Amino acid sequence: MTQEEKQTQLRWYGAPLRVRYQESDQMGVVYHANYLNWFEIGRTEMIRQAGFNYRSMEDRGVLLPVIEINAKYASPARYDDLVTIYTAITDFSRLRLNYTYEVRRVTEEEHQKNVGKVWTEADTLPGELLVTGTTRHVWLNTDWKPVRLDQALPELYTALRSAIAGGEGQKS
Amino acid sequence: MTQEEKQTQLRWYGAPLRVRYQESDQMGVVYHANYLNWFEIGRTEMIRQAGFNYRSMEDRGVLLPVIEINAKYASPARYDDLVTIYTAITDFSRLRLNYTYEVRRVTEEEHQKNVGKVWTEADTLPGELLVTGTTRHVWLNTDWKPVRLDQALPELYTALRSAIAGGEGQKS
Amino acid sequence: MTQEEKQTQLRWYGAPLRVRYQESDQMGVVYHANYLNWFEIGRTEMIRQAGFNYRSMEDRGVLLPVIEINAKYASPARYDDLVTIYTAITDFSRLRLNYTYEVRRVTEEEHQKNVGKVWTEADTLPGELLVTGTTRHVWLNTDWKPVRLDQALPELYTALRSAIAGGEGQKS
Amino acid sequence: MTQEEKQTQLRWYGAPLRVRYQESDQMGVVYHANYLNWFEIGRTEMIRQAGFNYRSMEDRGVLLPVIEINAKYASPARYDDLVTIYTAITDFSRLRLNYTYEVRRVTEEEHQKNVGKVWTEADTLPGELLVTGTTRHVWLNTDWKPVRLDQALPELYTALRSAIAGGEGQKS
Repeated sequence: MTQEEKQTQLRWYGAPLRVRYQESDQMGVVYHANYLNWFEIGRTEMIRQAGFNYRSMEDRGVLLPVIEINAKYASPARYDDLVTIYTAITDFSRLRLNYTYEVRRVTEEEHQKNVGKVWTEADTLPGELLVTGTTRHVWLNTDWKPVRLDQALPELYTALRSAIAGGEGQKS
Repeated sequence: MTQEEKQTQLRWYGAPLRVRYQESDQMGVVYHANYLNWFEIGRTEMIRQAGFNYRSMEDRGVLLPVIEINAKYASPARYDDLVTIYTAITDFSRLRLNYTYEVRRVTEEEHQKNVGKVWTEADTLPGELLVTGTTRHVWLNTDWKPVRLDQALPELYTALRSAIAGGEGQKS
Repeated sequence: MTQEEKQTQLRWYGAPLRVRYQESDQMGVVYHANYLNWFEIGRTEMIRQAGFNYRSMEDRGVLLPVIEINAKYASPARYDDLVTIYTAITDFSRLRLNYTYEVRRVTEEEHQKNVGKVWTEADTLPGELLVTGTTRHVWLNTDWKPVRLDQALPELYTALRSAIAGGEGQKS
Repeated sequence: MTQEEKQTQLRWYGAPLRVRYQESDQMGVVYHANYLNWFEIGRTEMIRQAGFNYRSMEDRGVLLPVIEINAKYASPARYDDLVTIYTAITDFSRLRLNYTYEVRRVTEEEHQKNVGKVWTEADTLPGELLVTGTTRHVWLNTDWKPVRLDQALPELYTALRSAIAGGEGQKS
């Protein structure tokens, strides 16, 4: 794989969840702001799969607030649906981190299979597309000042590079 | 004021709000956990009316977490309803603080009138009763260890005594 | 087992979850109202394990709103913790349904094991106790009028009897 | 009013609120998804000021779900802050409705003044800019099929035209 291909080929991580009653609204569908919580679950689980832990990141003084979000709603999720949040990193540097997301309704069988799985082709993601979105983030310290991640938390910097690239060369 | 009067006569503070869409659920009523948020708004506004500020309390190292809640649901609130959260202190010491609440649906006219008002008779509270509840709290420091409020934050201790008693002696 | 023992021995169902970032508040712990959402997840998963489905219940015109809740907070859950919601039915009739809950922080190993499991002794529930609670409910139709469950939805009535008793006819 | 003026001059409606404790997260700031709830409050209050009522719209079978959102986070709101949600319609037809928002932190004095007020120049909106955003919506019936608003609910169609134009000709 050339350097160019690496940049265009995303690695999608799946985080399955079941829709909570509290997430519904009186239209009988998931209230639209809740998808942003799900995006957060998607990126948290992705970082966990990459071998790091978002909580320990904050414990060590690095914050990653959202500076921009975008979401497009194609079809509504409903209470008790099984959905998977597919998350991929689209841009990553020592200063910032951008994600893209697809929320899809999945079957019970897909739900079980999607735990901890990774996809490299968006058009193979299982399930019915509900919502797509993106978020942009910057690395800050606890005083909300920008930090360079490779200096502030080198282990996370390495883990995220691995999450993008697919780890120890197992992707050819 | 005798001990007996203290126990029987409460001072109720009114905090009016309008029900948000996000607070509804697919039964078409306010999701039951949201009343606990409203109880919090009730006690926050009460403390503000007593001349203190809950945020500055935390800024100065005193936390007041909930240790017990109880709520009884008589009738549901719905999206866009006007409701008032009536809040009274039922027990207060340097170690703890207990509240009681009534959530009532009010008219537009009552809504306007209830801002910043105080009642001393529960049976005169305006509106249709929806939910009643109680919460119990303890004073903690930021390490979650108990503190004595009169030592940790004497101004708040004084403000709360005033909120119970009705201020500068106007209640005999 | 005698009738008396039947009434005193609860069957606890475990529903594991991971604490979401959005569930934290600025004290750095889970906001207290969120435990009520978790109680709902506990009873939903319990009914699912009993072979029924809360969503299909509502689709078929039976509502089960909360009429009373109680919660006692022993120790706070924090972001990213693994917790299990243990749920047991304490009272059940064609007119009403009452639950009791224990929220416990569990290890990764317990988390995996607790999916779909049932306990009959409260003192053997795995994990560190965080919150206990109870909820009371009544069966209503979509006009919010009381219904008798054995008439309105006999399959659910049977499934719940089974959830209490432990399944295929072991309750005589 | 010429077509050109319509496109360039927005009418901003102000909806003031106070930040709730439950809206904070463990970074000590408002959790980013909550601004979407506030956008909803902004557009609800705007419609109310235009003489219509979002709830009655749904009661009469017209839904207005979000199909796209965008938000940019400049500076965080904190618990107990006073903020105003400024809302303007950017595009309106019988098929769709688009809004733009500015969330600003305001003083106590501005808070009082902003209730029910309208601005026609974005650069005169009071307060410190925190978040900007846009939402796009379509008119649907309760089967989630597109409807033409002028046919489905002509009063609302008229009220919204008035909200954009400034009512009975008082804007030239």
